[in-house]
Amino acid sequence: MGLYSPTMQRYLELIENELEDAMPSVFVKQKTVCEAMRYACAAGGKRLRPMLVLSFAALCGGDVHAAVPYACAMEMIHCYSLVHDDLPCMDNSLLRRGRPSTFAEYGEDMALLAGDGLLTRAFEWGLNADNVALVGECKAVRALRLLADAAGIYGMVGGQTIDLESEGQAIDLATLQELQEGKTGALLQASCEMGAVLGGGGEEQQKAAATFGAALGRAFQIVDDILDVTASEEQLGKPVGADEDNEKVTYVSLLGLDGAKALADEQTAKALEALGVFGEQAEELRVLTKALLTRNA
Amino acid sequence: MGLYSPTMQRYLELIENELEDAMPSVFVKQKTVCEAMRYACAAGGKRLRPMLVLSFAALCGGDVHAAVPYACAMEMIHCYSLVHDDLPCMDNSLLRRGRPSTFAEYGEDMALLAGDGLLTRAFEWGLNADNVALVGECKAVRALRLLADAAGIYGMVGGQTIDLESEGQAIDLATLQELQEGKTGALLQASCEMGAVLGGGGEEQQKAAATFGAALGRAFQIVDDILDVTASEEQLGKPVGADEDNEKVTYVSLLGLDGAKALADEQTAKALEALGVFGEQAEELRVLTKALLTRNA
Repeated sequence: MGLYSPTMQRYLELIENELEDAMPSVFVKQKTVCEAMRYACAAGGKRLRPMLVLSFAALCGGDVHAAVPYACAMEMIHCYSLVHDDLPCMDNSLLRRGRPSTFAEYGEDMALLAGDGLLTRAFEWGLNADNVALVGECKAVRALRLLADAAGIYGMVGGQTIDLESEGQAIDLATLQELQEGKTGALLQASCEMGAVLGGGGEEQQKAAATFGAALGRAFQIVDDILDVTASEEQLGKPVGADEDNEKVTYVSLLGLDGAKALADEQTAKALEALGVFGEQAEELRVLTKALLTRNA
Repeated sequence: MGLYSPTMQRYLELIENELEDAMPSVFVKQKTVCEAMRYACAAGGKRLRPMLVLSFAALCGGDVHAAVPYACAMEMIHCYSLVHDDLPCMDNSLLRRGRPSTFAEYGEDMALLAGDGLLTRAFEWGLNADNVALVGECKAVRALRLLADAAGIYGMVGGQTIDLESEGQAIDLATLQELQEGKTGALLQASCEMGAVLGGGGEEQQKAAATFGAALGRAFQIVDDILDVTASEEQLGKPVGADEDNEKVTYVSLLGLDGAKALADEQTAKALEALGVFGEQAEELRVLTKALLTRNA
């Protein structure tokens, strides 16, 4: 996809191979769910979260290979959330990344179980004796704690709840931020922090990773909102903000296009600034950050 | 409920209090899901799984209080599985323990998220720094590994998959056993093993706990099947086996009532025998086992 440097391309390969290994065999009686789990985790996404885990593990001077199982546990959580999000009782999405969503392909019951299976598998994999041995019990516990907290009721599940509860309502900026920080920000931030913990980073490095991840998550979402508007503007020839059918509150609907762009720039600058403590070594991550956050340029 | 000894009644109190503490506050924006999580975990069940965790921790000479968070993590997994099982795309059950199921009470979307939230919360709670400090990182990792493995694709989720896949099919005894060992056996066995690990039991004690848990799980399910038949027989005045509408394969449909009773007796004896290594101290657990498994007497 041209987004990643050669080093990061190698990380991507490590991630894809490990995810392949981590998925359950399909030569068992519970075949259909195993297939659905594999389908939901199949290559195609950017693998941004596990990539952040490995990048920060490397930046903190740690063994990248030892962090791979935890990077993949993070990706499994992300993939399960997409499977459950697409279910009829949620977004009812038949398509995901240009192909049938997991429930459209395997049925609602199997998609529910595949999501449950992936969520559980993340912890099975992170707690697996061989994987724990690579990083030691202390780091394994801290990394998985970050993962669980970010995925749970005060993180991703919480954000999804606020999203459901605020459907069709005129929420304010603070609520939108809380929603997005849970729904997408929590996992992104935890990915960076996990990497720093697994890589043996000190307090300053862990703090920088958290600050970077939080700012990246915010900027990422704002840029998404901007792209949604500018893309449909281009397609439809309509002025921005004239889309009366779309009542969903976004950063653009609350702040206007210029306001949203200014906030995205502010958060991007904050993310880049946080990388300062890593010096020259963070250059590739700087390039990636700019590539991700200037998609609207 | 008369099932538990005074010591076990005290365990039950510890479990109920801890579950209350572990559930997220409802004074937040994600209120509805927090309420649904509490509803799904509310008192009413036997709490058999956490009770087994604490009983084996005590039998192995460990600190029962330190095991309570892990006992409750086990119960959260059990509760999440009931919430997701009741969903329309699974069993579509409007009732659970004599009151509306979680989805009937809070809607399908909130029940899905409450299940996800509970499953994740089990690991958040088990990985929580204070709770890990009570048992140490090594035991925490081993206990949560048992939990994750038993809950996952090779355990509970796997059993549920086989159940779905074999609907309306004439499965054999081996498949029924694999299905039940995943669906209900895995968590029961893991509860006993977790207790032994957390209580500091040696290899022999851990093995005995696993053997007991596996036999209890099998006997428990067979007794359930027997009760289903004898209860409907009593209600309807129909001869056993004449229920043509109910095509579900059970131990009774495969082995006949007498064959099922013989197998239940065999597994009950095996469970009781496994308790031998704990001597006199296991007397209360023996009494409980007999009470659970002679419900058909």
